[in-house]
Amino acid sequence: MRTLSVDDTFDHGDFGPLHKLLGSEVASPEIPKVFETLKMRKEGAVLFADIAAPPMNLLGPALARDLVSLIQQAEADIALKVLVFRSTDPDYFISHVDVTKIEEYRQEAAKLTGEASIALLFRHLSASRLVTIAQIEGRVRAAGSEFVLACDMRFAERESAIFAQPEPAFGMTPGGGGLQHLVRLMGRARALEVMLSAQDFDADLAEKYGWINRAMPANTLGDFVRSLAYRIAKFPEAGLVAVKDRVNAIALAPIEDFRRDSDLFGEGARDPEGQSRIQAALERGFQTRHAEMDLAGLLADLNGH
Amino acid sequence: MRTLSVDDTFDHGDFGPLHKLLGSEVASPEIPKVFETLKMRKEGAVLFADIAAPPMNLLGPALARDLVSLIQQAEADIALKVLVFRSTDPDYFISHVDVTKIEEYRQEAAKLTGEASIALLFRHLSASRLVTIAQIEGRVRAAGSEFVLACDMRFAERESAIFAQPEPAFGMTPGGGGLQHLVRLMGRARALEVMLSAQDFDADLAEKYGWINRAMPANTLGDFVRSLAYRIAKFPEAGLVAVKDRVNAIALAPIEDFRRDSDLFGEGARDPEGQSRIQAALERGFQTRHAEMDLAGLLADLNGH
Amino acid sequence: MRTLSVDDTFDHGDFGPLHKLLGSEVASPEIPKVFETLKMRKEGAVLFADIAAPPMNLLGPALARDLVSLIQQAEADIALKVLVFRSTDPDYFISHVDVTKIEEYRQEAAKLTGEASIALLFRHLSASRLVTIAQIEGRVRAAGSEFVLACDMRFAERESAIFAQPEPAFGMTPGGGGLQHLVRLMGRARALEVMLSAQDFDADLAEKYGWINRAMPANTLGDFVRSLAYRIAKFPEAGLVAVKDRVNAIALAPIEDFRRDSDLFGEGARDPEGQSRIQAALERGFQTRHAEMDLAGLLADLNGH
Repeated sequence: MRTLSVDDTFDHGDFGPLHKLLGSEVASPEIPKVFETLKMRKEGAVLFADIAAPPMNLLGPALARDLVSLIQQAEADIALKVLVFRSTDPDYFISHVDVTKIEEYRQEAAKLTGEASIALLFRHLSASRLVTIAQIEGRVRAAGSEFVLACDMRFAERESAIFAQPEPAFGMTPGGGGLQHLVRLMGRARALEVMLSAQDFDADLAEKYGWINRAMPANTLGDFVRSLAYRIAKFPEAGLVAVKDRVNAIALAPIEDFRRDSDLFGEGARDPEGQSRIQAALERGFQTRHAEMDLAGLLADLNGH
Repeated sequence: MRTLSVDDTFDHGDFGPLHKLLGSEVASPEIPKVFETLKMRKEGAVLFADIAAPPMNLLGPALARDLVSLIQQAEADIALKVLVFRSTDPDYFISHVDVTKIEEYRQEAAKLTGEASIALLFRHLSASRLVTIAQIEGRVRAAGSEFVLACDMRFAERESAIFAQPEPAFGMTPGGGGLQHLVRLMGRARALEVMLSAQDFDADLAEKYGWINRAMPANTLGDFVRSLAYRIAKFPEAGLVAVKDRVNAIALAPIEDFRRDSDLFGEGARDPEGQSRIQAALERGFQTRHAEMDLAGLLADLNGH
Repeated sequence: MRTLSVDDTFDHGDFGPLHKLLGSEVASPEIPKVFETLKMRKEGAVLFADIAAPPMNLLGPALARDLVSLIQQAEADIALKVLVFRSTDPDYFISHVDVTKIEEYRQEAAKLTGEASIALLFRHLSASRLVTIAQIEGRVRAAGSEFVLACDMRFAERESAIFAQPEPAFGMTPGGGGLQHLVRLMGRARALEVMLSAQDFDADLAEKYGWINRAMPANTLGDFVRSLAYRIAKFPEAGLVAVKDRVNAIALAPIEDFRRDSDLFGEGARDPEGQSRIQAALERGFQTRHAEMDLAGLLADLNGH
């Protein structure tokens, strides 16, 4: 029988009385003990999944595989209602996809949806019966941003969260559904600014633009998200699902649009210009932890390759 | 012949010179002297309707009946252009529907639209030739929120206004069109947060999320709304109507979606889970003035029934 | 051979090292030396077009003609990627159309799109391969607002920018696409407030409502826009165009809606009520620089004509 991973580095104190209250439910057969890139903690009807894919939480084949397994198992666990995503890395939530392994992570995504596309994997999450909340500390760029956009709600740490959708710096378009979400959330002009500038946006500006629900100070974010998750988990599932369905019917873009964006991203990555820019970026430190602390600066210099 | 109700408790001083200027028009044949739950005051082309349904401005059969009559008569009064809704209760604008009289208030609504649904009553208001403004002091939850969302504009008192769309706490979906409006106004993630959390939102957060036009301090709100109403009333009606029509063509959800939401709400209210949660809430003080001052807290506890 | 206009009043110091860096590209054969109402400055892949149509940057036949020529030539210049619009008048960016020359400026617009409508001229700009940025100082009302709404991004000077869509004060509807954009950017209630009130909105409120990307202080706006324009201009054009196309597919209203709004505006302007209101406004100083400093006040008084 599987039991929950016990994460000794986890701050158990965070949970206080509620943790004790729900203690009898912590052990659960449905969630496997170990994911390579996700640390799990189930408390009642809430599952916390902390992304832990060092050195910088790149979305490569391993994280894609684990996300697929997590979603499959969590959806099958009828005791679960709410799924909270966090990161064990204070600087990176999900940095972006591993551009050297596009085919590989797409194949992992296909195990959930039948199509080799993280756009459809993310859209599956948006359409899931589970309520998903992203607690964002650190950077979410490109597919990282698209992942949190696929979640039902997202709250970001004011001091550390950084947002970007920088594909146009490579001559590419966002391929994971971010374009679809950003235009609907912030309108034409702000979505164009976000993408065409390939700039970093801090949490306050992301809140102003509607990219996230709210920016919050570090000392309240965790408690807020936990409290929100537990509150929602007390409500009947039928209502949660019905509301999600009705909202998605209005605001979640059609599958065809996600698929088309995904295809355009793939074409851009195979294009000589895209390849050349990706190579220039890698030479300047792209996909390394230190260099991406200021990715916006790095991307301004790809022209000279 | 009917004349306007003279409301002695009304602060006539508010109107100052303008009141005197328009004094000769205060008497009007079109608006009946007395509505049980609405206090009327007509000044030129502007009609002020103050909701007064003690003890807490529940939307039950009486208020539904009066709203229907008001709308019918106001639309038939060719001298009227602008309709301003306010509340005589500083803590409650419209609290929500009377859940013990769903069939009754729906039958009242049917007298306007032919369908037993307040969603269609509210949508009728959005599509009306009249320009509607809500001046929100106190609580607007569930159908209260949906009523102000149906108005063309809404301005809220920063110190007192409270917003919620808490149907999912009962396993139900918003049935009065609020879901349609909220998703279009604030996007998928914030609309999901609002509904799935069943939380109270203050006026500043409601403004940030786009739920209202603006939050304003108590000492300026009334003057602002009155001034805005008079300004609009000076413009030719043809232009006002044409703009509303063009805007509604883009942003007002189809009738079918309002009808479907209304049906889902009705189904949820008849469902055993919904019935059980409603009963548990009533036992804890739901639909009483005092207990609903903190409805968000009350709703967190329905699980233990 | 044509060369760039040398604008001696331009603050060359603004450009600093970047100006020197790009100096060899300042001369360009594609952009004509002189437009009557536009001062041009090309720097690399960025073209700055400063609107200079004294006394108050009215959009009449001359400015419409020059905008058409500029767009045609800029789109044909394969070295150009980004087009920045500014104003040489600190109080007026584009005031609005010249209501005494509607047929004339429409005929100029027709030279680009084949249809006598500035709505379609503006929509052409939104659909252009060029990335357009409006740096807004001073007033943009009616077609002025609609022009900046047609740009891909817009940043406004906090101290001076004023926004309005006041056509309903004349009994008319916005005819240049503004209604389409405003509803999608700020939602039903705020768009109705903007139009039905015919009020002036400052830059901070315009930012809050999503009318603009951001309001910025005068001492940073110019540098920000220039830096943004140069940054975008470094990225491959294919990606910029693909992103614009995908965004426009979601958020740019259909041609038929622009055409219909344009027709309604024309009908309103020919209507006796519209004619009468326009005449009353002209008698009160409408279309004069001084009186329009407070156009919102002027429009409140048209009733007494």
